[in-house]
Amino acid sequence: MFKKVCIIGCGLIGSSIARAIKKNKLARKVVSSNRSNTTNKKIIKLNIVDEASPDTRKIVTGSDLIIIASPLSSYKNIIFKIKNSLKNGAILTDVGSVKKNVIQLIEKNIPNNVSWISSHPIAGTEESGPESGFSELFKNKWCILTPSKKSKNKDIKLLEKFWRRIGSVVDVMSAKEHDYILSITSHMPHLIAYNIVNTTLKIKKKRDRNIVKYSAGGLRDFTRIAASNPIMWRDIFIQNRENTAKMIDKFIKNLRDLKKAIKSKNEKKLEKIFTKTKKIRKEIIKAGQDINKPDFGRKQN
Amino acid sequence: MFKKVCIIGCGLIGSSIARAIKKNKLARKVVSSNRSNTTNKKIIKLNIVDEASPDTRKIVTGSDLIIIASPLSSYKNIIFKIKNSLKNGAILTDVGSVKKNVIQLIEKNIPNNVSWISSHPIAGTEESGPESGFSELFKNKWCILTPSKKSKNKDIKLLEKFWRRIGSVVDVMSAKEHDYILSITSHMPHLIAYNIVNTTLKIKKKRDRNIVKYSAGGLRDFTRIAASNPIMWRDIFIQNRENTAKMIDKFIKNLRDLKKAIKSKNEKKLEKIFTKTKKIRKEIIKAGQDINKPDFGRKQN
Repeated sequence: MFKKVCIIGCGLIGSSIARAIKKNKLARKVVSSNRSNTTNKKIIKLNIVDEASPDTRKIVTGSDLIIIASPLSSYKNIIFKIKNSLKNGAILTDVGSVKKNVIQLIEKNIPNNVSWISSHPIAGTEESGPESGFSELFKNKWCILTPSKKSKNKDIKLLEKFWRRIGSVVDVMSAKEHDYILSITSHMPHLIAYNIVNTTLKIKKKRDRNIVKYSAGGLRDFTRIAASNPIMWRDIFIQNRENTAKMIDKFIKNLRDLKKAIKSKNEKKLEKIFTKTKKIRKEIIKAGQDINKPDFGRKQN
Repeated sequence: MFKKVCIIGCGLIGSSIARAIKKNKLARKVVSSNRSNTTNKKIIKLNIVDEASPDTRKIVTGSDLIIIASPLSSYKNIIFKIKNSLKNGAILTDVGSVKKNVIQLIEKNIPNNVSWISSHPIAGTEESGPESGFSELFKNKWCILTPSKKSKNKDIKLLEKFWRRIGSVVDVMSAKEHDYILSITSHMPHLIAYNIVNTTLKIKKKRDRNIVKYSAGGLRDFTRIAASNPIMWRDIFIQNRENTAKMIDKFIKNLRDLKKAIKSKNEKKLEKIFTKTKKIRKEIIKAGQDINKPDFGRKQN
């Protein structure tokens, strides 16, 4: 499908893409650039890529597909490094979770003969680093493409095909729409998880209660998400700050309503809300977006 | 261990206890009382109990151990029905998630020759009903005993032994302590999950966005908890309303701080908080309270 693919940032997502490319034989050569030489050595040793180097400018040269898979705050630097080394006709994409600002930044700075098509594979685990990646990560998961003014139609088709070949289901939408929807389905849940764990840690510090011991009552579910990559999520919230702030306000308003209903013992209202929220889980399972087993199928010994 | 055990309310928890008693041969006879005759017929047919009837007063007669496993709002009714049918020397317990008010209510209303020891097995799934129970539900899970003025010491020992035999690890603490800790580790996480799903549903209704489709980005984790039994959770929040209200205030205060940090692009502060929250997951896994696999070990096809 491609001669040379270059992945900039070989963490959980980057290394999973590299593994999926190799497994499905989608490129003759996969290379990667990472600031840390420990990472570069590791991914060569683990046979995740064919070549790795901290010299992004050099290693990107001659690539047909370049995938930026590093935190959003690193994009600016990367673009200025690579913009003059991009091959004529190359496709440039990323895997970032926020689109609007990023698309404009890159659109402005790359040459006209490069197709810039932003991607967002909605997949991941709470782990980070190249060791935690695996080739099946994208299987049956959505990947949203958000084209820019510098996206060529034939390249959008090719990139769609690429994501499908590594297991994704592909959707195309505008950056604005993407950032709004993801603030609901992904950014807000992460922020809330971070906030409940942070609130708990503050109480724990003050009164040293047995929080960890009794976490199976619900809290443990949130600690999984709150264990996600701190740099990645710091960047996401800042990049999508307007949607995030709006969602926080809506969330607080509804939480206040719940508090009022609880304090006034409004049984009917609470029952109505909790019955409504019960239904969406079935829809999610039906849509194939979670497993159809109680407790996420987790089995403990 | 017992001659006759009576379980009042044979849902997920009640039926799991019945199954565990039978599996571990802890009673000669297990009976159950349920308002719904469909349930009574079902649990006989499934061989979960030996006898079942809507007549609580009658079926409780002669039991050595009585376990109330129905929603907190049903306790008052049940106690008035059974208080004159309890056997001399019987142990009365429950499995409720809030203790303070309930302990006082029952303490006041039962005869002196009955040992009233409240229990809270911290176990469950998002499913409800007798079909969803299983005998291993309590394995390696904490069960907190909160004795009352009407708890005899030898009976506390016996009840501890009972919970251990069905797999639990047992702790004893005061009702006040229990209600405070559980508001942090269980009630607040549930309320937050209900609230984020409710907030999402409101947006979905208004703008009909593709929420379900992209829920794998984080939201789906919360929908599991928000699919829990509405009646049970309505009762828990109302019974523990003072602790819950305090936790809501703390949560909102911290969320406002996060919003401020996001809007002012305070990278350092966000990174510091998200790095701190990452650590507790490892402690929870180390304490055996969650599985040591990314994504809860969920595997999808």
